[in-house]
Amino acid sequence: MSLDTLFNPRSIALVGATDKSGWSISTLANLRTHGFSGPVHLVNPRGGVVHGEPAYRSLSDIPGTVDLAYVMVPTAAVLSVLREGAKLGITGYVILTAGFAEAGPEGAELEREVVEFARENHLTVLGPNGNGFINAAAGITPYGLPIPSPLLRGSVGVVLQSGALASSVLGFAQARNVGVSLLTSMGNESLVTVTDVVDHLVDDPATRAIALFLESVRDPAEFSRVARRALLAGKPIVALKIGRSGLASRTAQAHTGALVGDDAVIDAAFRQLGIVRVRSLEDLIITAGLLAASGPLPGPRIGVVTPSGGASEIIADRAEDEGLELPQFAPETVARLETIVPSFGTVQNPLDVTGYILIDRTLLGRALEAVTADPGVDAVMLLSEPPRLAPPDPEPTFALFTASARRIAESPVPVVVVSNVLTDVTEFGRTVQERTGFPYVAGGIEHGMHAIGAAVRWSRWHREALARAAGPEPAAAPVPTEADVEGASGVWAEHRAAALLSSAGLPVVPSRLVDDEESAVAAAGEFGYPVVLKAAAEGLGHKSDIGGVRLGLRGPEDVRAAFRAVMGALESAGTAAGGALVQPQRSGGVELLVGVVRDPAWGLTLAVGLGGVWVEVLRDTALRVLPVDAAEVRRALGELRGRRLLEGARGTEPADLDAVADVVARVAAVAESLGDRLESLEINPLLVAGSRVEALDALITWRA
Amino acid sequence: MSLDTLFNPRSIALVGATDKSGWSISTLANLRTHGFSGPVHLVNPRGGVVHGEPAYRSLSDIPGTVDLAYVMVPTAAVLSVLREGAKLGITGYVILTAGFAEAGPEGAELEREVVEFARENHLTVLGPNGNGFINAAAGITPYGLPIPSPLLRGSVGVVLQSGALASSVLGFAQARNVGVSLLTSMGNESLVTVTDVVDHLVDDPATRAIALFLESVRDPAEFSRVARRALLAGKPIVALKIGRSGLASRTAQAHTGALVGDDAVIDAAFRQLGIVRVRSLEDLIITAGLLAASGPLPGPRIGVVTPSGGASEIIADRAEDEGLELPQFAPETVARLETIVPSFGTVQNPLDVTGYILIDRTLLGRALEAVTADPGVDAVMLLSEPPRLAPPDPEPTFALFTASARRIAESPVPVVVVSNVLTDVTEFGRTVQERTGFPYVAGGIEHGMHAIGAAVRWSRWHREALARAAGPEPAAAPVPTEADVEGASGVWAEHRAAALLSSAGLPVVPSRLVDDEESAVAAAGEFGYPVVLKAAAEGLGHKSDIGGVRLGLRGPEDVRAAFRAVMGALESAGTAAGGALVQPQRSGGVELLVGVVRDPAWGLTLAVGLGGVWVEVLRDTALRVLPVDAAEVRRALGELRGRRLLEGARGTEPADLDAVADVVARVAAVAESLGDRLESLEINPLLVAGSRVEALDALITWRA
Repeated sequence: MSLDTLFNPRSIALVGATDKSGWSISTLANLRTHGFSGPVHLVNPRGGVVHGEPAYRSLSDIPGTVDLAYVMVPTAAVLSVLREGAKLGITGYVILTAGFAEAGPEGAELEREVVEFARENHLTVLGPNGNGFINAAAGITPYGLPIPSPLLRGSVGVVLQSGALASSVLGFAQARNVGVSLLTSMGNESLVTVTDVVDHLVDDPATRAIALFLESVRDPAEFSRVARRALLAGKPIVALKIGRSGLASRTAQAHTGALVGDDAVIDAAFRQLGIVRVRSLEDLIITAGLLAASGPLPGPRIGVVTPSGGASEIIADRAEDEGLELPQFAPETVARLETIVPSFGTVQNPLDVTGYILIDRTLLGRALEAVTADPGVDAVMLLSEPPRLAPPDPEPTFALFTASARRIAESPVPVVVVSNVLTDVTEFGRTVQERTGFPYVAGGIEHGMHAIGAAVRWSRWHREALARAAGPEPAAAPVPTEADVEGASGVWAEHRAAALLSSAGLPVVPSRLVDDEESAVAAAGEFGYPVVLKAAAEGLGHKSDIGGVRLGLRGPEDVRAAFRAVMGALESAGTAAGGALVQPQRSGGVELLVGVVRDPAWGLTLAVGLGGVWVEVLRDTALRVLPVDAAEVRRALGELRGRRLLEGARGTEPADLDAVADVVARVAAVAESLGDRLESLEINPLLVAGSRVEALDALITWRA
Repeated sequence: MSLDTLFNPRSIALVGATDKSGWSISTLANLRTHGFSGPVHLVNPRGGVVHGEPAYRSLSDIPGTVDLAYVMVPTAAVLSVLREGAKLGITGYVILTAGFAEAGPEGAELEREVVEFARENHLTVLGPNGNGFINAAAGITPYGLPIPSPLLRGSVGVVLQSGALASSVLGFAQARNVGVSLLTSMGNESLVTVTDVVDHLVDDPATRAIALFLESVRDPAEFSRVARRALLAGKPIVALKIGRSGLASRTAQAHTGALVGDDAVIDAAFRQLGIVRVRSLEDLIITAGLLAASGPLPGPRIGVVTPSGGASEIIADRAEDEGLELPQFAPETVARLETIVPSFGTVQNPLDVTGYILIDRTLLGRALEAVTADPGVDAVMLLSEPPRLAPPDPEPTFALFTASARRIAESPVPVVVVSNVLTDVTEFGRTVQERTGFPYVAGGIEHGMHAIGAAVRWSRWHREALARAAGPEPAAAPVPTEADVEGASGVWAEHRAAALLSSAGLPVVPSRLVDDEESAVAAAGEFGYPVVLKAAAEGLGHKSDIGGVRLGLRGPEDVRAAFRAVMGALESAGTAAGGALVQPQRSGGVELLVGVVRDPAWGLTLAVGLGGVWVEVLRDTALRVLPVDAAEVRRALGELRGRRLLEGARGTEPADLDAVADVVARVAAVAESLGDRLESLEINPLLVAGSRVEALDALITWRA
């Protein structure tokens, strides 16, 4: 059953309807007041009158077909309702009833039975333990909590892994005059998942942007597939994903039993999937509202038109935070603005047209027209909003905003309207917007600038995704041969790990495995001094911990002494059956750490960072979920706080970042090619000096 | 004239009143509708009828006394109004008229004349180029822009260096149900300044918290004095100070000609003065509103009571951001809550009492009572708010919120109420708050948590300030003797700078100034090898740039060669008349950089940071405006991103941070003692190894 059918029933039965339940009262009231035109049947085993209407004793008693059963019966009775419904051919269900997996093992067992029955009988079930949905676009609202009036229809789809927040989100959207297409309160997601609903919304013509409240992502692979589809389709996903703090993860686990993943990995994954991550419910709705209203923004160069110097200054500060550019206006724009802005004003970006707008009400509009014509701006931000209260004669206000709306509609670049502060769009404000076509107003400079920054970033991701899709298919990662990974278990210390990388064509420092002093000296002679000598033994992970690394050996005597010391160290460590690796010693350059580790939820994940204090003290690494290409690695390197070191700060040779990114991407591809058996692959350090990139040490850990 | 008189006139003249001016219309309407009970006289040189009332031709024609003249005449006529008013004994003025210093040199000259005349005649002038003030506490509103109704009286004083933002701030405060005591729109501050108004508000019994919008701080010394007084008096100052970005500084300069200081110094100064700095207008009002309502909060341990799991998770994330602790509840609290929270809920902090509140409306209140009794929480955050719309029968709502309000009032710890999202407090919400005594609701989790975090920080600063004030007077910095700073000009290179520090009792590496090879070798012998040899010449700032530093000299031959090389370097650099410094070479430890530089606005400012990448790549320094004590330096060290290195990361010996802070504070005191002649004093590096702290190099620059 497609979700299209679930969300568009023509007839609904409220099973377990009772005057004693607020949910029952609300659900019926919602269906009756927000536009549902089909029959709503009440079912109560005692029959009689419920909510002032006659109730059926069972689903079977209802004449005619039922498309959706909204189930509010006690937990233990849910399965029998499904059984009865399935017999009658009812395929759509919302289960409001709680007491399932979220309540403990007994509930989990009941839920398992429900799932099994539903799967076998091809039922589509939203919930249990969820309030249902609001299909505002179609006026179908089987939803268990009061819906504030008016229910605004619009183009933001909202999916929530929290029942209690839905009312707040709806209320806030209404206060912003943001209409929703579909809102779903997911409950336990035992059958229909967040991913399923997002997948549905990607194809839903009523939906232009998707807002998610997430506690956890249950099937990252499927979620990723759908998110990529949304990005290509130009449907922005904005997500408030909790669990940034350790505390929130614990709280969420208590709350839903959902796995809350490592937050840094989720950050990376969302960034790669083109999901805008926000931190507040306000940003969730304001940003989704903007993206639904504006569509993609062509670039980060914003012209700003305001009637206030103070606001201009706040905007300038916030633009820097959000990575937006406020370029200087072109000379022709300046000349034109100088004929518009009063002489006591200053023509610059952000533009303050001055409080003279109180006297000349066309001032802001004329300035807007001039700025939108500037050749150097990608979009324009206009600080404006309809008045909060209706003046005695509203017609001049309507005329003014109609003129503004026309100017905005005719602008050659997108115009985003932002208000000074985040206060409700009042009823009169809504009327002005409806009557004049005045566009969406992002609420307040603080959240509005965040939304513009997010929209610019999302738009770039969208363009990049389109370009990638138009380009050649990325080469599939090669499948490892059995020979490559023969004996793949435990820990592969440097000599085996490096050999594998080297055979895959990666630049690895030359080395020779030796098992006596003479061979060590001979190898050193071949490489040329100075050399390094390292303990080499099966399964030996951290050789420096046992004193198994000797650097700066300048002659044969150094090498002999080092060999004996390293053998001694191996013996003390109880790994006698080993040898040593001899390598030329490199100097100069910058040391990177490149690791691929398996995240329990998201799979193989690349971490790249600088060595030394950067990783040890600052935890300065950038993460990416595999697969990645070199361009993505290049962006990851750009996120490092220590990136200036790669660019040549402190007198180091600037690194060839393309060369580095190429090697790191190939390391990631090798890791992927090793398949499910790989637990982690680490190169530490990867030495970078100009365009020379070379792995000096490596370690592979296989899964048990 | 005290500002008390300016802000509390008993009679007002609107000079330049005219039907053609929106300002004139608004000012009169404001005075007539917001409670001013004294006479308002209109003055227009043509006389006749203005705003439907007879107008006087001049101030002199008005019978009776005038306390305040609100001046709206053309720029060129302002001075003559003041002349006439002064003759009549009118001492209070608001000058709305623009066209003064903000408009160019001609206007600046006019403003200078106004200032001079006002000073000579002891007039108190707010403006010019300002909209006036709103004394909401007294219902006196000579203010040139429309004031939204109802004007809410309350305890937040608002001072704005922006006219256009005042309406937004007022509107937002109203939407939050935050009443103001006094709001002033400062204009050019040619006589009455922001600092003057803040000083007034510190003593104003109607004001409990002060909100500032600042473009610049004009007299930092006086501002600091007043801010310290406010902190001791327990009147929190919350400030939105623009100019975080270079762009905003430029914008502000264009806008007002005000100097916008170095933002990092302002951050440090505000922190030291106990001023809460916020980034948005929303945070400005929500935070000031909370501080006005709650007073000081005793500590960072917050118990959280909510009816929503999703909200709990957002709160947990945000708590971490804001440095708030959400401790686990005590066993007795858990036991008590387990009897209150439904069995399918989880008892933890943050507490989700579950959606069962829809059925049992006492649930939230009972849980609140249990959590406020927990011995481990300093304050409690309650997620609640009055309904937006009046139900048909509002009495049960009133009863519920009356009960809540009583519980909150009787709580042994402060209870802060926060709503889920930032939507307006509706008219019904305001009615509920008024009728039931239900307290201030901080708007939305996002801004509410910010406000709680800020309030906790401010409260700590307040307690610390009280403790300092109760403690012994800090010793005054010693005044430098003429001998100390004899010949204080240009640059004092290491040998003179170090001698000065050493004579002040600071730990400086021993050194010997030598002018031939033999003396150099002799000195090295005394110190013991290895030694360092450095070029020493009058005015030589950066000796390593000319190759004037030789490290790791291990014997007499090394020293001789180094001496010759350094002399050669000096000669090549054209500073032949020099010698060399010999010092023992130190090793190990962590290198700090300690600098005191003169900020053009805030005076001597201490910068402390780690050397190497920390300062070169990460710009990781902490700033403090002088004076500082060791405790303040200790806090500054704690702000460094590289602080873990001082704590012993990467195998270094943990630094004795008290010893470090003591030395750095003494360096700052020495810098202060050098008086106005000092431009900068830098120790780089200050070597720290455990409790050994020693300056290895120093440089002093004197002002011209």
